[in-house]
Amino acid sequence: MDYKDVIANPDKYDFTIETLGSPAIDSPFQGRRFIEEYERVSFAVKLHELEPLFNSGRSLPAFERSGPRSKIFHDPAWSRAAIVTCGGLCPGLNDVIKNIVNVLWFGYGIHNIYGIRYGYRGLSPKCNLSPVVLNPDVVDTIHEDGGTILGSSRGNQDIGDMVDTLMRMNINMLFTIGGDGTLQGASAIADEIARRKRNISVIGIPKTIDNDLGFMEKTFGFDTAVLTSADIITSAHNEAKGAYNGIGLVKLMGRDSGFIASYASIANSVVNFCLIPEVPLILDGEHGLLRALERRFDQGKDHAVIVVAEGAGQDLFRHKRKKRDKSGNLIKNDIGLLLKSEIQDYFEDRGREVNIKYMDPSYFIRSVNAKGTDSIFCNLLGEHAVHAAMAGKTNMVVGYWSNTYTHVPIHLATLERRKVNLNGDLWNAVLGLTQQNVYFHNTVGGSNENTAP
Amino acid sequence: MDYKDVIANPDKYDFTIETLGSPAIDSPFQGRRFIEEYERVSFAVKLHELEPLFNSGRSLPAFERSGPRSKIFHDPAWSRAAIVTCGGLCPGLNDVIKNIVNVLWFGYGIHNIYGIRYGYRGLSPKCNLSPVVLNPDVVDTIHEDGGTILGSSRGNQDIGDMVDTLMRMNINMLFTIGGDGTLQGASAIADEIARRKRNISVIGIPKTIDNDLGFMEKTFGFDTAVLTSADIITSAHNEAKGAYNGIGLVKLMGRDSGFIASYASIANSVVNFCLIPEVPLILDGEHGLLRALERRFDQGKDHAVIVVAEGAGQDLFRHKRKKRDKSGNLIKNDIGLLLKSEIQDYFEDRGREVNIKYMDPSYFIRSVNAKGTDSIFCNLLGEHAVHAAMAGKTNMVVGYWSNTYTHVPIHLATLERRKVNLNGDLWNAVLGLTQQNVYFHNTVGGSNENTAP
Amino acid sequence: MDYKDVIANPDKYDFTIETLGSPAIDSPFQGRRFIEEYERVSFAVKLHELEPLFNSGRSLPAFERSGPRSKIFHDPAWSRAAIVTCGGLCPGLNDVIKNIVNVLWFGYGIHNIYGIRYGYRGLSPKCNLSPVVLNPDVVDTIHEDGGTILGSSRGNQDIGDMVDTLMRMNINMLFTIGGDGTLQGASAIADEIARRKRNISVIGIPKTIDNDLGFMEKTFGFDTAVLTSADIITSAHNEAKGAYNGIGLVKLMGRDSGFIASYASIANSVVNFCLIPEVPLILDGEHGLLRALERRFDQGKDHAVIVVAEGAGQDLFRHKRKKRDKSGNLIKNDIGLLLKSEIQDYFEDRGREVNIKYMDPSYFIRSVNAKGTDSIFCNLLGEHAVHAAMAGKTNMVVGYWSNTYTHVPIHLATLERRKVNLNGDLWNAVLGLTQQNVYFHNTVGGSNENTAP
Amino acid sequence: MDYKDVIANPDKYDFTIETLGSPAIDSPFQGRRFIEEYERVSFAVKLHELEPLFNSGRSLPAFERSGPRSKIFHDPAWSRAAIVTCGGLCPGLNDVIKNIVNVLWFGYGIHNIYGIRYGYRGLSPKCNLSPVVLNPDVVDTIHEDGGTILGSSRGNQDIGDMVDTLMRMNINMLFTIGGDGTLQGASAIADEIARRKRNISVIGIPKTIDNDLGFMEKTFGFDTAVLTSADIITSAHNEAKGAYNGIGLVKLMGRDSGFIASYASIANSVVNFCLIPEVPLILDGEHGLLRALERRFDQGKDHAVIVVAEGAGQDLFRHKRKKRDKSGNLIKNDIGLLLKSEIQDYFEDRGREVNIKYMDPSYFIRSVNAKGTDSIFCNLLGEHAVHAAMAGKTNMVVGYWSNTYTHVPIHLATLERRKVNLNGDLWNAVLGLTQQNVYFHNTVGGSNENTAP
Repeated sequence: MDYKDVIANPDKYDFTIETLGSPAIDSPFQGRRFIEEYERVSFAVKLHELEPLFNSGRSLPAFERSGPRSKIFHDPAWSRAAIVTCGGLCPGLNDVIKNIVNVLWFGYGIHNIYGIRYGYRGLSPKCNLSPVVLNPDVVDTIHEDGGTILGSSRGNQDIGDMVDTLMRMNINMLFTIGGDGTLQGASAIADEIARRKRNISVIGIPKTIDNDLGFMEKTFGFDTAVLTSADIITSAHNEAKGAYNGIGLVKLMGRDSGFIASYASIANSVVNFCLIPEVPLILDGEHGLLRALERRFDQGKDHAVIVVAEGAGQDLFRHKRKKRDKSGNLIKNDIGLLLKSEIQDYFEDRGREVNIKYMDPSYFIRSVNAKGTDSIFCNLLGEHAVHAAMAGKTNMVVGYWSNTYTHVPIHLATLERRKVNLNGDLWNAVLGLTQQNVYFHNTVGGSNENTAP
Repeated sequence: MDYKDVIANPDKYDFTIETLGSPAIDSPFQGRRFIEEYERVSFAVKLHELEPLFNSGRSLPAFERSGPRSKIFHDPAWSRAAIVTCGGLCPGLNDVIKNIVNVLWFGYGIHNIYGIRYGYRGLSPKCNLSPVVLNPDVVDTIHEDGGTILGSSRGNQDIGDMVDTLMRMNINMLFTIGGDGTLQGASAIADEIARRKRNISVIGIPKTIDNDLGFMEKTFGFDTAVLTSADIITSAHNEAKGAYNGIGLVKLMGRDSGFIASYASIANSVVNFCLIPEVPLILDGEHGLLRALERRFDQGKDHAVIVVAEGAGQDLFRHKRKKRDKSGNLIKNDIGLLLKSEIQDYFEDRGREVNIKYMDPSYFIRSVNAKGTDSIFCNLLGEHAVHAAMAGKTNMVVGYWSNTYTHVPIHLATLERRKVNLNGDLWNAVLGLTQQNVYFHNTVGGSNENTAP
Repeated sequence: MDYKDVIANPDKYDFTIETLGSPAIDSPFQGRRFIEEYERVSFAVKLHELEPLFNSGRSLPAFERSGPRSKIFHDPAWSRAAIVTCGGLCPGLNDVIKNIVNVLWFGYGIHNIYGIRYGYRGLSPKCNLSPVVLNPDVVDTIHEDGGTILGSSRGNQDIGDMVDTLMRMNINMLFTIGGDGTLQGASAIADEIARRKRNISVIGIPKTIDNDLGFMEKTFGFDTAVLTSADIITSAHNEAKGAYNGIGLVKLMGRDSGFIASYASIANSVVNFCLIPEVPLILDGEHGLLRALERRFDQGKDHAVIVVAEGAGQDLFRHKRKKRDKSGNLIKNDIGLLLKSEIQDYFEDRGREVNIKYMDPSYFIRSVNAKGTDSIFCNLLGEHAVHAAMAGKTNMVVGYWSNTYTHVPIHLATLERRKVNLNGDLWNAVLGLTQQNVYFHNTVGGSNENTAP
Repeated sequence: MDYKDVIANPDKYDFTIETLGSPAIDSPFQGRRFIEEYERVSFAVKLHELEPLFNSGRSLPAFERSGPRSKIFHDPAWSRAAIVTCGGLCPGLNDVIKNIVNVLWFGYGIHNIYGIRYGYRGLSPKCNLSPVVLNPDVVDTIHEDGGTILGSSRGNQDIGDMVDTLMRMNINMLFTIGGDGTLQGASAIADEIARRKRNISVIGIPKTIDNDLGFMEKTFGFDTAVLTSADIITSAHNEAKGAYNGIGLVKLMGRDSGFIASYASIANSVVNFCLIPEVPLILDGEHGLLRALERRFDQGKDHAVIVVAEGAGQDLFRHKRKKRDKSGNLIKNDIGLLLKSEIQDYFEDRGREVNIKYMDPSYFIRSVNAKGTDSIFCNLLGEHAVHAAMAGKTNMVVGYWSNTYTHVPIHLATLERRKVNLNGDLWNAVLGLTQQNVYFHNTVGGSNENTAP
């Protein structure tokens, strides 16, 4: 998502949320202020962006605010909800499930709640997977476990089949927890439901451990992933320091963006090189990684810790056709294995010993349970999803912006991936803590002022 | 801080940041976009609040945006910085120290950095405590340890004495990390410096594990405190379930606000009663805690987990004079011990056995090191403090608002404490997950719809 | 237990295990070598102890070896087992329960297994507590949770009542997991069963987190308790270093012995004073703790970490009658609170500031789940208990000696508590790592050779 | 080591410890009982093994007991010690180093202590690596970090060169921490020292995370490795349950023995198949792993967790030449990758979907710091190594037998690797908890009595 483009061309972006109809039922939800339909959270928060927008006289780009409405669309008495989790594991799936169930049950008195097994597959009659019945007792302690009690799967099923299943089960609200593909599937389901003129709300809770969804400041599971990465990085540091010219190389998640790699490199600031998809990864030449590493060892540093996002340096595979062929399928896109072998070859050619230890902890990181404030975020996403569904919203996901929960149309949420801003706080902090550019640009020792004693 | 009042009477609140003078030196800081002085982050983010403000024609309440400036005030060549940590421990102190040192050193080339020992005491010549020299090597792995490498102390010292010390040491930027009292002290130091017409920047990094500072969405250490509380609550749950009518009672931090207690009760959602200062704590009578607990056991639930913020129920001590006298000094203000004894007495009087286990883990929680994204927050607070100092700002703290780092005048930051909004997302989630009002208001079994099977 | 006395007077100690009768049924247990009835593990393992015993011509003190027998006494087809957990929580209770159930079920094909609720109370008809049915599915993941799924209670019930219950339920093997009192109760139950000439095996699994049971090298839960203490001690260390003349004071379990305190002080070797029941605790005078602490601060050390076992210094309460009266009931036997107040008073009297932080983490430590090799120990204790029961053994506990699981008569197991040997490896290591005697005996600075630079 | 052979042919095994000469100096070590030279710990502890040995009239196989002697050989006044760590990382290296330093310094007053960098390489003059000076301040908190502060390397250097270095440095005691190869190197060093008639003690502390050293019940780091594995196995379990027919496959350490795999499978008993080197790994056919897995899914179990020791199934690579060629170098000996691909192929051929997640966490597991009682074990091994050196022992390692620290000649310690006894407690517990043989032998459903409901 191009933040600046939204500010510059707000009319290109439609923040309107679809609804099934006009909510006419008094909400039974108790215990807090109802949110008014007119409440909006401004997309822009900086004055020099806000002012021209205001002065233009057009309506400002702004998110519908999430929360319980005084009038609801679905009658709790006949409501039947379904929850489905799709795609790879991510910390917090069970927290989201738990609180959707709790808020439906205690908040709205809805007691027919079904868990769809193994992602969209469980909605396909072909797969013959019975849903599980969910209630507060079933979900009572699932937040203590990683993974998802419902199981998951990748890929979509036939949209018509899935809508048939929802109709056969008399479901009137479907909660889908998943990433881009899942949400696009959810949108297709919502469209098909609209075509059939059925009153089924389809509400997404966006899941991407990479934390790079557009129009959303943060996605669930990310904080826990960063937390868990820290221990791995400590181990890589110990391995690096434990061997002569030791190198600890850790591949972290991040297909298109370097958020986890960047955050992890700041959270446990013993990282010396952080490599992300947003920065072209050059191996060879004076400003390449290999020479940078060599400079570090030349300077008498006796170890190096490298964190690489899985999506970094993917163009290296284009130009290194032979390498790829020889290494076979497994290595094909694995930047971690490529780096390991390139670094080994480089120093071997120069008759210099290095000792690389390569760690690939993604399954470990993504399958732990959500911790601390991340768990709270999951709980609130689940709750707001229920409020949105009850109000008759559909084809949307629950988002988060300026410290507030929001409604985001699926088409916006899946429009484009966020990237690490190379001019911003985050990447600047990575550069500051790693001091990696000193080695990339050979400014080592160029100035007495910039080196520690 | 009354959020609504700022919106309603923006003129009452002065967001202007003091400066020592006009920055005239080109900044040596590299690697990211400089922030322009005119950049402001809007205090209001909701359209229905923004619109009237805009239409009023007055300037909007807004924070100066934090970040590196292209022109700086202090000349790095002669700059000498001092860092001081005050008050109780809080996760992340060492991360803040580490990154202040790193950004001064690598970002601005400032190599004269001193750590003041034991809080403001180290600035008083009477206490005879030599500062320690700080550099990137000294702080390299301090983020792995809880506490503060500088030591801390409570209370202020004579303002004149402290300014004398700063002048004698030729310090031109002082970083103070501490809570309300500390910041007020920092403000007094800045005022005295202004009176003496000296060019010393005084920049605060607000520290309150309770996360209740005004004009700031979040304070450092809080996420880690919530994270650490979860294990304690699991233990309390195990103790409660392990005994006949077992009660696990945990006192958490929160002198004036229930943020930690509330967050912790959602993060590990096995809590049955969450008691916070914002909600009057009634022990006796039909809607009191004791009767609510009894109802829970009457319903066949075999255990209860209670989380109480230390500031909850303080008025109980006024009316229970005898209790207090008998129990002596230690018990005086300890709501945990009071609850323990009241609950025991209540059930004893009724000939009903309960087994209470009381846990008071505050020292444990506050003395761990900052973890995951909390550590990142500390690093960035530290960095922004340096940028602010270099730009010649003073008498301010680094804040955080709408996902952006900001400058906040100390007088605003210490104006008033935030409270848990009883009509908002947070408290609503606590009530939803604990279902405590069911027991307080005796709606147990009142409706088939609202009870789990 | 006086180890030396067993060697010197072996005839005083009867290692014979009671049996209900002669095992005549072929065991269905598969997959490993059966243990022969004659197998014994020698009590003595040192040659200079073994030789005189051998030469005396008498039978050596030796434990029956535990393990599956080829012939069993109880017919699996009609066997009904009961499991009961008593006393305070201890890591590993659920592991023991889990594996008793698994080995009964899969190893012997016994499918009638009952969990007695809340300790012996669940065996008393007066308490009206129905047992829970146990099977491998019920216990599948209970090892991940601390506490006990059965609940627990302290104290014994009427022996006749309990045997009546066992007979009414047609139980023929009772597994009791508990400490001294529990085991003595189990022994009384076994005696009453014998009096009534019933074929019910009573097998204990000794539980004492203090690890001080006689005739047993180790008890379950202890390793996990030591592990968990380490984090608390780190916090105490951070608190101590974070304040001027800071003192971190941690009370750990150990009513009669200092095993946990000693092990914890070695496992996280930042402890400066370790105080255990085996060493008289002197507060006042030249060789008292207060003067020792003062010497440490005199030497320029800026902090102190003190670990005290709850049973240490109990005689101080006799002589300090006034202190006790003033402090009221709560303080009466709490050596931690006493130390805190004595240390404060001492330094206050001398006009010297110290900052004590007192931590009492026992409930936290004992209610976590068993970890790592401790969990394995629990599993094997549970298994061996089943083998013993099936073989018709009774009135015994499962023990561990020289790396081998053993049978120990209850009367031996409860004879006397082990103590930390002040001339042995353990205490010596504590003294070596804390260097506390340097301060107690004022040998500070007495020799250049014994101080670190 | 063949335990039975030692009992049967004790004369084949020489337990005698070499000494440099007669100790004549009064030991300055204080605070505990001295161990007498005649003290021996019996190798056999079972009566039916002990009795024939006794009756044979020959001397029993027994270890010299470790501990401080009243007379020492090396004069502390001129002693200079060196410590070297070799081979792969293992939890606890820093604890061992720390306590060697502490006991030398505080226990014997020896202040010339050197840390050799990067294993034996640091003893070779060719490598030009200066030793580091060690003292109690340097090692004060190193136990909190994994890895080794000295660095490590694999392989031996020229023996003569290394002895030259020791002599040039005037070292009279060398502590080597390492595995088989390292210890054999240490033995060669000791032999060369003897040939040169020098008084240098060479004392080993055996390091093998696999815990399979002969004549030793346990090696350091093992408990922590088991502990750390548990979290990985939980993640594998979550991954397995999160996907349709999910399989979590974890490779753990264990080149020649299955101790870590077996212990880890009991410590976190959610493992369904545990594969170790001691049991031939058959993939194909009715009793092969692939068919066993298939049976498990046939039975309606929806997931499987497999733990495989790295040394398991190595003979599969002989017979699968084509597989090996195709997969290239990396896959060659990697049983984890082989299993992953074989399982995928097998089910793909049968048109059945499975989802395998493969985890290879060895670097993570071995590079954490030692925890809890494992840390204590390291401390005591370090201490006993110092006592042995001071007494003039050489060419030996510190061992552990029947709960007692011992001296073991290096030639015995490196004689042969221990294996998991397939008829013993450990493997039996693995089979009991995994129930894997039910699937290997197709006894599923064969009997109502052996399946959980």
